[in-house]
Amino acid sequence: MKALFYEGNHSFTLKTVETQPLKEGEVRLKMAYVGVCGTDVHIYHGKMDARVKPPQIIGHEVSGVIDAVGEGVTGWQIGDRVTVRPLNPGVEMPLDNGYRHIGQHLKFIGIDSAGGMQQFWNVPAFTLHRLPENLSLSLGAMIEPLAVACHDVRLGMLKAGENAVIIGGGPIGLLIALVARQKGANVLVSEVNVNRIEFIQSLGFATVNPIEQDLVKAVEDFTDGAMADVVFEVSGAQAGVTAMTQIPRVRGRIVMVAIHSEPKAVDLFKFFWREIQLIGARVYEPEDFDEAIALAASGELPLDKMITQISPLAEAKQVFETIDKNPAGMKYLLEIN
Amino acid sequence: MKALFYEGNHSFTLKTVETQPLKEGEVRLKMAYVGVCGTDVHIYHGKMDARVKPPQIIGHEVSGVIDAVGEGVTGWQIGDRVTVRPLNPGVEMPLDNGYRHIGQHLKFIGIDSAGGMQQFWNVPAFTLHRLPENLSLSLGAMIEPLAVACHDVRLGMLKAGENAVIIGGGPIGLLIALVARQKGANVLVSEVNVNRIEFIQSLGFATVNPIEQDLVKAVEDFTDGAMADVVFEVSGAQAGVTAMTQIPRVRGRIVMVAIHSEPKAVDLFKFFWREIQLIGARVYEPEDFDEAIALAASGELPLDKMITQISPLAEAKQVFETIDKNPAGMKYLLEIN
Repeated sequence: MKALFYEGNHSFTLKTVETQPLKEGEVRLKMAYVGVCGTDVHIYHGKMDARVKPPQIIGHEVSGVIDAVGEGVTGWQIGDRVTVRPLNPGVEMPLDNGYRHIGQHLKFIGIDSAGGMQQFWNVPAFTLHRLPENLSLSLGAMIEPLAVACHDVRLGMLKAGENAVIIGGGPIGLLIALVARQKGANVLVSEVNVNRIEFIQSLGFATVNPIEQDLVKAVEDFTDGAMADVVFEVSGAQAGVTAMTQIPRVRGRIVMVAIHSEPKAVDLFKFFWREIQLIGARVYEPEDFDEAIALAASGELPLDKMITQISPLAEAKQVFETIDKNPAGMKYLLEIN
Repeated sequence: MKALFYEGNHSFTLKTVETQPLKEGEVRLKMAYVGVCGTDVHIYHGKMDARVKPPQIIGHEVSGVIDAVGEGVTGWQIGDRVTVRPLNPGVEMPLDNGYRHIGQHLKFIGIDSAGGMQQFWNVPAFTLHRLPENLSLSLGAMIEPLAVACHDVRLGMLKAGENAVIIGGGPIGLLIALVARQKGANVLVSEVNVNRIEFIQSLGFATVNPIEQDLVKAVEDFTDGAMADVVFEVSGAQAGVTAMTQIPRVRGRIVMVAIHSEPKAVDLFKFFWREIQLIGARVYEPEDFDEAIALAASGELPLDKMITQISPLAEAKQVFETIDKNPAGMKYLLEIN
C-alpha cells in the first residue's frame, strides 16, 4: 500500500509499504479523506520533530471505511463508514481529574503515533465514530476540526441570543462561528486577512478588521453596548490577547482556543474588574464528536464551502506548499484511493 | 462630631464638623469600628488622589449602631447593630449583564464618597446588613473583608475535599484560607514573609515559602500528585502569576483576587493544555455578606486572632505609619467613641 512519510523539515516521501498486522481491539480502515490541520503544517515546518520523530506518517482529520475488524472488537463491521477521534488516553493519573481527553499520558494519534495519510490505517476501535449514510466521506474528514469547535462552544457555555466574538477567522475560528450561529448566538468575526474576510462575509457573518477599525467600538456597535458574552481567542497573537480582555461584558467568558507557545502580556486587571472568566479548551470529548456528526449530517452548516481544495495523496507536498503560500485558504483535503 | 480627613499624600487631619442632614432612604450610624483596608493604605500613599479627591473621609470596613432613620426607610430601627455593604450601584447599563455589584456606574462608598472614619455616618439603608447579638462590633468591622473572601471562594466553586492553594497570605488571602477550610477544602498557603508564615501556621494552616522551596513540588506533595483544584492569586506579583498556572490540575480554577495594575506575562498555553479556568472576582454580592455574617457569628473562625491592633480614631495617622513599617500585620481597627 501507499503511505506518505513526513521525513523532516518541509519534506514528504510517498512510499510503498506493507500493511501492519491488526492487533487486538483494533480495526483496519481503508482511508478515504484526510484533512490538513494547522498542526500538520506546524509539523511540516519542522517545529515538532522532537515529538513526531520522522520518518512518520501523520494526519488525524480522517474518514474511511472499515476494511478489517481485529480480535475483541464488537459493534463494528467491515464496510462501516467512520471517522476517528484520535486520542489514546493511556494510564489515568490523579492530575487528570478524570478528564481522559487531556490526561497526562494522552497520546495523540497522528502526532505521537502513525496517522491517517496512508491507504490502510489500524486504529483502536474505541476511537471510532460512525458516519451517517447521508454524510459524505469528504465531509467526514471535517468532523475532527468541527468537534474542536463544538468543544470550544460548549466549554464557553454559549447560549442562544448571546453575543459571540471570534478573534481569528481561520478554519477553526470559522467552524466556531458556524457552531455558535447554529446555537442561536449573534456572531462577529475579527480577522485581518482581506481574502478571508471576504470569504467569511460570503457565509453571512458580520466581520471586523481590527487593523482598519477600532475593535472595541465595533463590538459596542454590534452589541448595542452590551459587549461580548463569549470571546473566542483563536488568533494566537499578542494583538488578539490584548483585544480579548477589552471586549467582554461583566462576567463574560473568554475561551482560549489558540496555542500560545510563549507567555503573553495579559491585562489581569480586567478579569478582576469585570469578573471575566478565561476558559482553556483543548481537543474534544466523545460528546463533541457526536454533536459534530449530527450538525454535519443536518446539512445546516455550509461545511462544503470550507473545503478549499481536494487533492490526491501523491500531491501532498504541493498541497503543503500551497497552504504556505495561500494563508487565506480554509480546509485542504487529501483524497486517498 | 469628629471626622478623620485624608488630606493627600500620607496626611490625615482629625476635624470637628457638623453631622450631615439625613436624606430620604438613609440612616445615620453611630460608628463603632472601622478596619483599615489595603485600599485605604493605597489611598494614604497618595495613589488614588484622582478618585478620592482629598480632603475626604475614607473607610469602608465598618460596624455601628443606627442613630437615626431617614424618611422612607423601613425595616430598620434606632439601636440596630449593623455593618455596611459599601456599594452604590447607580444606573444599570447593558454592559453590566445584570451584575449590580460591579456595574459600570458603581460608586464605592468610602472611596468615591465619604467613608466611615467619623463619629456619625449617613449611608443608604439598602447598604445595611444586621449583625447578630452574639457578634461583637469589633468583629462586625471584619465582615466586609470576610465577604470578599466568601465571594472569592464562591466564584471559585470550591467544594469540600478539594485542594486549594492560596498565593499570598495577607489579610484577604488568610480570610480566603479560613473560608476555604470551613468549606472542607484542604488548604495550603504560599507566603514569602516569615513573620506572616509563622502566624498563618499558628492558625493551623500548611504553608510553603516559594523563595525557599519549590512551590510546584510542594503542591505535588501536599496533594499526592493531584495538584490544586482551586488556586487563589492574591499576591499581585509576577511571581504569583507565574506560579498560578503551574499548580492547577486539569480543569482547575484560578481565582483572580489581586489587583494587577499593569499587564503581566501569563502562560496561556497552560490554560489550553490543562483546560484551566481563570475567574475574576471583585467585591461581593449581598449573599456574600449574609454568609460572612453567619460564619463570623458561628464563632468557628479565629477572626479575633486576625485583629493585630485596635486604636482610637485620633491615632489613625500612627496606625497607617505602623502598617507601612509592619508588613506582617493583619487587620488594624480604629475604634470610634
